[in-house]
Amino acid sequence: MPKRIFTFRRGAADRTADASEALGLKGANLALLASLDVPVPPGFTLATSVWREVQSGGDGLPQELRADLRMAIEWLEGVTGRGFDGDTRPLLLAVRTSARAQMPGLAESVLDVGLNDRTVDILAAELDDPAFAYRSYRRFIESYAHLVLAVDPAEFEDIADAEAAEAGWTEEPGDRAGWRALIARYQTYLDAEIGAVVPQTPLEQLSAVIEAAYATWRSPLATSHRLIQGIPENAGLAITAHAMIFNEHDHNSGTGRAVSRDLTTGESRLSGEFGLVAPRAREIGEKPPVLDLGTLSAGDAERFPADMAELTEHVRRIEAHVGDVVEVDFMVGDGELFLMQSRVARRTAGEAIRIAVQFVDEGLIDEAEAILRIDPNSLDELLHPTFERTSDLVVLGRGMPASPGAATGEIVFTSERAQELANEERPVILVRNETYPEDIHGMHVAEGVLTIRGGTTSHAAVVARGIGRPCVTGAGALRINAGTATLHAAGKVLREGDTITIDGTSGEVIEGAVPLLRPALTGDFATLMDYADRARRMRVRANTETPIEARSARAFGAEGIGLCRTEHMFFEGDRVRSMREMILASDETGRRAALEKLLPIQRSDFTELFEIMAGLPVTIRLLDPPLHEFLPQSDGEIAETASMLGVDESVVRQRIAALQEFNPMLGHRGCRLAISYPEIVETQARAIFEAAIDAGEKAGEAVVPEIMVPLVSLRKELDFVKGRIDKVAALVMDERGCEITYSVGTMIELPRAIVRADTIAEIADFFSFGTNDLTQTVYGISRDDAGNFLSTYVRQGIIERDPFQTIDVEGVGELIALAVEKARRTRPDISLGVCGEQGGDPASIAFFEQTGLDYVSCSPFRVPIARLAAAQATIRDERSRRGRARR
Amino acid sequence: MPKRIFTFRRGAADRTADASEALGLKGANLALLASLDVPVPPGFTLATSVWREVQSGGDGLPQELRADLRMAIEWLEGVTGRGFDGDTRPLLLAVRTSARAQMPGLAESVLDVGLNDRTVDILAAELDDPAFAYRSYRRFIESYAHLVLAVDPAEFEDIADAEAAEAGWTEEPGDRAGWRALIARYQTYLDAEIGAVVPQTPLEQLSAVIEAAYATWRSPLATSHRLIQGIPENAGLAITAHAMIFNEHDHNSGTGRAVSRDLTTGESRLSGEFGLVAPRAREIGEKPPVLDLGTLSAGDAERFPADMAELTEHVRRIEAHVGDVVEVDFMVGDGELFLMQSRVARRTAGEAIRIAVQFVDEGLIDEAEAILRIDPNSLDELLHPTFERTSDLVVLGRGMPASPGAATGEIVFTSERAQELANEERPVILVRNETYPEDIHGMHVAEGVLTIRGGTTSHAAVVARGIGRPCVTGAGALRINAGTATLHAAGKVLREGDTITIDGTSGEVIEGAVPLLRPALTGDFATLMDYADRARRMRVRANTETPIEARSARAFGAEGIGLCRTEHMFFEGDRVRSMREMILASDETGRRAALEKLLPIQRSDFTELFEIMAGLPVTIRLLDPPLHEFLPQSDGEIAETASMLGVDESVVRQRIAALQEFNPMLGHRGCRLAISYPEIVETQARAIFEAAIDAGEKAGEAVVPEIMVPLVSLRKELDFVKGRIDKVAALVMDERGCEITYSVGTMIELPRAIVRADTIAEIADFFSFGTNDLTQTVYGISRDDAGNFLSTYVRQGIIERDPFQTIDVEGVGELIALAVEKARRTRPDISLGVCGEQGGDPASIAFFEQTGLDYVSCSPFRVPIARLAAAQATIRDERSRRGRARR
Repeated sequence: MPKRIFTFRRGAADRTADASEALGLKGANLALLASLDVPVPPGFTLATSVWREVQSGGDGLPQELRADLRMAIEWLEGVTGRGFDGDTRPLLLAVRTSARAQMPGLAESVLDVGLNDRTVDILAAELDDPAFAYRSYRRFIESYAHLVLAVDPAEFEDIADAEAAEAGWTEEPGDRAGWRALIARYQTYLDAEIGAVVPQTPLEQLSAVIEAAYATWRSPLATSHRLIQGIPENAGLAITAHAMIFNEHDHNSGTGRAVSRDLTTGESRLSGEFGLVAPRAREIGEKPPVLDLGTLSAGDAERFPADMAELTEHVRRIEAHVGDVVEVDFMVGDGELFLMQSRVARRTAGEAIRIAVQFVDEGLIDEAEAILRIDPNSLDELLHPTFERTSDLVVLGRGMPASPGAATGEIVFTSERAQELANEERPVILVRNETYPEDIHGMHVAEGVLTIRGGTTSHAAVVARGIGRPCVTGAGALRINAGTATLHAAGKVLREGDTITIDGTSGEVIEGAVPLLRPALTGDFATLMDYADRARRMRVRANTETPIEARSARAFGAEGIGLCRTEHMFFEGDRVRSMREMILASDETGRRAALEKLLPIQRSDFTELFEIMAGLPVTIRLLDPPLHEFLPQSDGEIAETASMLGVDESVVRQRIAALQEFNPMLGHRGCRLAISYPEIVETQARAIFEAAIDAGEKAGEAVVPEIMVPLVSLRKELDFVKGRIDKVAALVMDERGCEITYSVGTMIELPRAIVRADTIAEIADFFSFGTNDLTQTVYGISRDDAGNFLSTYVRQGIIERDPFQTIDVEGVGELIALAVEKARRTRPDISLGVCGEQGGDPASIAFFEQTGLDYVSCSPFRVPIARLAAAQATIRDERSRRGRARR
Repeated sequence: MPKRIFTFRRGAADRTADASEALGLKGANLALLASLDVPVPPGFTLATSVWREVQSGGDGLPQELRADLRMAIEWLEGVTGRGFDGDTRPLLLAVRTSARAQMPGLAESVLDVGLNDRTVDILAAELDDPAFAYRSYRRFIESYAHLVLAVDPAEFEDIADAEAAEAGWTEEPGDRAGWRALIARYQTYLDAEIGAVVPQTPLEQLSAVIEAAYATWRSPLATSHRLIQGIPENAGLAITAHAMIFNEHDHNSGTGRAVSRDLTTGESRLSGEFGLVAPRAREIGEKPPVLDLGTLSAGDAERFPADMAELTEHVRRIEAHVGDVVEVDFMVGDGELFLMQSRVARRTAGEAIRIAVQFVDEGLIDEAEAILRIDPNSLDELLHPTFERTSDLVVLGRGMPASPGAATGEIVFTSERAQELANEERPVILVRNETYPEDIHGMHVAEGVLTIRGGTTSHAAVVARGIGRPCVTGAGALRINAGTATLHAAGKVLREGDTITIDGTSGEVIEGAVPLLRPALTGDFATLMDYADRARRMRVRANTETPIEARSARAFGAEGIGLCRTEHMFFEGDRVRSMREMILASDETGRRAALEKLLPIQRSDFTELFEIMAGLPVTIRLLDPPLHEFLPQSDGEIAETASMLGVDESVVRQRIAALQEFNPMLGHRGCRLAISYPEIVETQARAIFEAAIDAGEKAGEAVVPEIMVPLVSLRKELDFVKGRIDKVAALVMDERGCEITYSVGTMIELPRAIVRADTIAEIADFFSFGTNDLTQTVYGISRDDAGNFLSTYVRQGIIERDPFQTIDVEGVGELIALAVEKARRTRPDISLGVCGEQGGDPASIAFFEQTGLDYVSCSPFRVPIARLAAAQATIRDERSRRGRARR
């Protein structure tokens, strides 16, 4: 049997190699503090192995454990000079569960174990404070009954109320007799109603508390938490017991929290607060006074009941040991200082960056360490507009936080109206019941999007995240009245043109305009990004097709465009009309005529993008969605389209019906369109090449257009489309009399392309993994429909997280690794990247680093996140490689 | 330079190892016949290498070739005793292209090369028949001009008409002067209009014909044919030239076709026919007399102008050499017999089986050879009802042959009406514009299905094939008038209750009832199946869930059920009502109540199936389709459902709207339903186990139910569902006090399941590959929507065949092989099968054999096809293994 009980006291703690596994977080931390010669209350920890021993045994605690417990108590009696059930100076214990990770559902602390009808009076005499002693005893009985006997604390409130009424006191009994009567009434109740009392023997109390605390490991809340967090069921629970500090006894006592630095400035001086005990204050219903440690340490230390310099010194020592800003919980009992717990200080993303850079400047950590200390996802809050939460905000309602950031603008209810106001440069918020593909142009021109229905994977949410618009979805308490063009919320009626603010990070909808704080990549943030850029191997590009976003992507450090979705260029205004004309044309001639109209528009779009990205690669994906997404839906639009085309409405309706699909995700889209209608590819390729020449001439620096063929499953598909592109390239070069450097590659987003990656790579200059569609096809899950069952899956523990957000390493990931290996086998110099949403997800980026991809591409607003995550991935990968090499 | 020209004459032919590649089919066949000492017209073949030589050279035929040609002509002059451009007995040649496979678009034969203004008169004198000589010359000029000068034959008709009018003849000129005038007019026309004439030098004629014939290799028709058939572009064309036989000259001449056996009985005696030349008969507009060789060889041989016994002997010799029934083309010229070509005799499936069994009986071939000689797909025509094509059939229209077999019945326009008439045991044909999932019960009770819209992969087609109902789709010339409940076709109006017959093999729709011939697996067919069963390794099961089909599957030799789709049990009558009640229930209690009603129905369904399949395994797939497929669609049904459930119609409509999906194929279905609503699995498992016990008791022989969990992508999904099944099994065994042997496995139909096959196999007793859905997800193609682009793919040569019909070996196949390897790694004894439609496709079955699957499962009507295909696969696989071992 391994060692069961580990003792600790200032300056000495039993050691163990795997402290947090063997002793849990709290036990390990107390042992650490003790070994750092910081004052801690002396005590001991029952190792997690004891929990396992108890589980595998029969009822109750084994005899050997009881013997060890007795020995530990005797040791503690010696250290404290107190006695468990002693005749003077009674030893009282605080008992806590200590798991290897934070876990809800476990037993709460039980304080003052060791008090009984006898020791309560001895304690009262020792401290000369019967009220304090009896208050503690009452609390102990309540805690014990709650944990061990499962008695609802409300029962005791009722009993106390009855006793107070009979005895004529209000808050608590006024004298010892009153207290004794209350305690007696408690025990009588327990005896009569529960059939058990709180034992008088301290060791029995302790055993019962330990046993009951162990049982909470199996509570439903704790169990489901372990399932979600992947903590093994048999990890087990440690329990710490330490001598009580009488921090609530007199004016020289209290509880505090100290942080080793000022988190805002990074300056090395204590901050935090200390709450003095003030029994009188409580009696008269006031809050006990709270002292600001920052002020105290700056020279007002005499108000602190212990030695401020000593506390400062202890915290410094812990910070130096941990190598990071720490936060400690401490107590002062009768003027004596005890540190109860320490942890790395929580901080906002901004504070974390400040501290990390400061630590590098102070030479405490290196850049790699600074990089690893920042959670890339935490940067999100720095990269979107925010606003200050003042008390005068009028919240109209709440929905799902579907795409982060805050936005302010006038309410519009249609994409057409959004367009009109946007043309007048008026900021708008598009408010819809739900959005459809035809709303994409409206979403593009809007500052933000609010929908009444849908969740975080609805059309509105996915598109908004993709184009970086703040979005709130599923704000079900709001109601749109289409007839009157009004929005009904919180008893108010808002009209088109009224201003609202939405916060896609919190899901709030707020009345009126709120001043927004715009993100900037400056100061410490910029410094951290410099560290990351020096450390990372993978390149980071952005997914975007609009000039505004392309500029912001460059400002955020994007090294090119990894995904320009040309279809988004076709939804706006006149463009969608020409698109419809093309789709509804009865033959190739008609299609070519419509495409001719789209050619100059596309060329000028590309030219602008290329100028912005001068010197960098730009990956342009050919038209991808099924054509029916472009067709009119409303009666009005159908009529308009029919009159524009000079055909009967029924013709338009028939064509719409003919293009409908059962499963559009698996339908006539991607390169399948290019093969059915090669004239589309030819027009797009011409626009790209002509734009590349124009932009190169204007910007003086050429871009390298990379043309990406979507949805390839057969090499011959790519053969066909690449043939058309190369033909157009030769033509344009001939016409313009110059050379264009370009490449043709493909999106890898279908399992068949993975299997045939070797042969496809023979003619592809690059692969870009489209993790969205790849996840859909590998799982056979439609993202649009997954809401109906994925939540059940998470609840049942069948999946841990949404495979669309973070790569499914075992399934999709294994296939990507297979494709990488196959592709490099036939074409070692192939460029490999990823352009699905996972390109901006840190956990996924770690996988892409391991898989050896060359770049990731993500939405512009996630570029800094990806830069940091890529740097972390490189550092971790190198470390683990070095680690393996050493072994 | 390899040998250019290969000569042949009776008893001697230049040899080459790869005859059909070097000489083409015709050239190789003539060389074979010559070497068998069969009388053939002497001649020579230009090898395919000559074609390649000519392609790589400049214009015209190379000098070396011309020299070789001259030498060959001289050899032929010697053999025939005739002279090319000779002064007596002119040598005339028949020139034909000879490719390695039948190929449309190549040059047709050019006869009588060597005739000119001089030789025509020499020939006339030799045969004493100027009309014959000039007729031949005229034909030669027309053929030459067509092939070499691209002159439309109609031009010559016009010229001849003009000449006839001027000269006063009708059919052809009456004398030599008339003929000469006509020929002169031909040449004048060519000279004036085309700028070229037919050369007078025979060697020039020959060279020009060869050169022009070569050019036809590049004709669009030939090129696209090669693409489709996978024939290399540089395979090249051989050309044969042989001495003309004057088979059209006198009464002792003619052309015939002889078959070495009577195909109906297999008896070894000549059959076929011979057409005598009868110039007089032609002159008076009658057909020349045709003799039946069967009669002649039976003792009426004197009417045959050559030696009948000699012909019989030659044909025997060829049959013996080929080892199969042969068919020969022959000619008789002036009483002399020449065999022109031989080939394996074409036969119907029934004849082929008869012959193969006969050959085994005669000891000419072994069983394995007999098995290999029958095309499994050809059995299809023997396995479905057919009818005799008499001349009095009234064809109302034609559509796509969507599901084979013929069916007769009364017209019904709705599934409800189909049900009503079926209840009265009246056979019906369901006639719809197109079908929807709600029509499945109507299709089940109908004899056949006819739709106005859709193709061979429409809903109607796929379902009909699955359940073995004859089906014609896309009969666009027919029109349903829903208002009057009439069918308009070919100018007729048919009403509900009128009888029609459809032929799903040909696509015909016929008025009235036609007597059907029912398939039976008896006689030679049964014998062949015995051979196959002895030879094959893989087991063959059937996909079915109805008792009728299960019985027919057993009759067709199915060794169990490989796929029982339980959802099909829920579409009929009351069942769909309970299903709807279940789906529309607001909570688990409501769902359980509805499921309770379905339990006894399912149990009795399963009991009947189990009794039919006593002693054999039955694989039951849990509920698979998305629930919305069961919901009412029409207003009437919605109203009925609402009143049945006692709720408002709007509630039903809301629920229908909520269950709608963007991509149902990738939606809330398969095991995802089981995880959301475990009560469905529990009910189904209970019905299965109770039925297994009941059926075992009744039939005295237990079935082994195999419960199949669909659409698994994660091992934990299977863990969850299997847990529920095992729990119910324990419960039922406990209740009934007996043991049930059962297994739980999964359908492998998603790429992720392939990747994780090793871990899934740890808890799966079997895998059944669902190739339909697997192909959909691997390709990212919705089968319902693929019609829009797959036809373009085939036309463009991007795919060779529909991957849903025959397995895509390189993509889907490679993944299946990967899953097999992974699964056997963790569970060597796992049972592996396939239950997609490809389970009945011979080419796919060959792949499954190589992959080492244990069984295939297909629709009942394809079971014999699968048995034969599996036997062929085993034999071929063993042979190729032995072949490899030898090398």
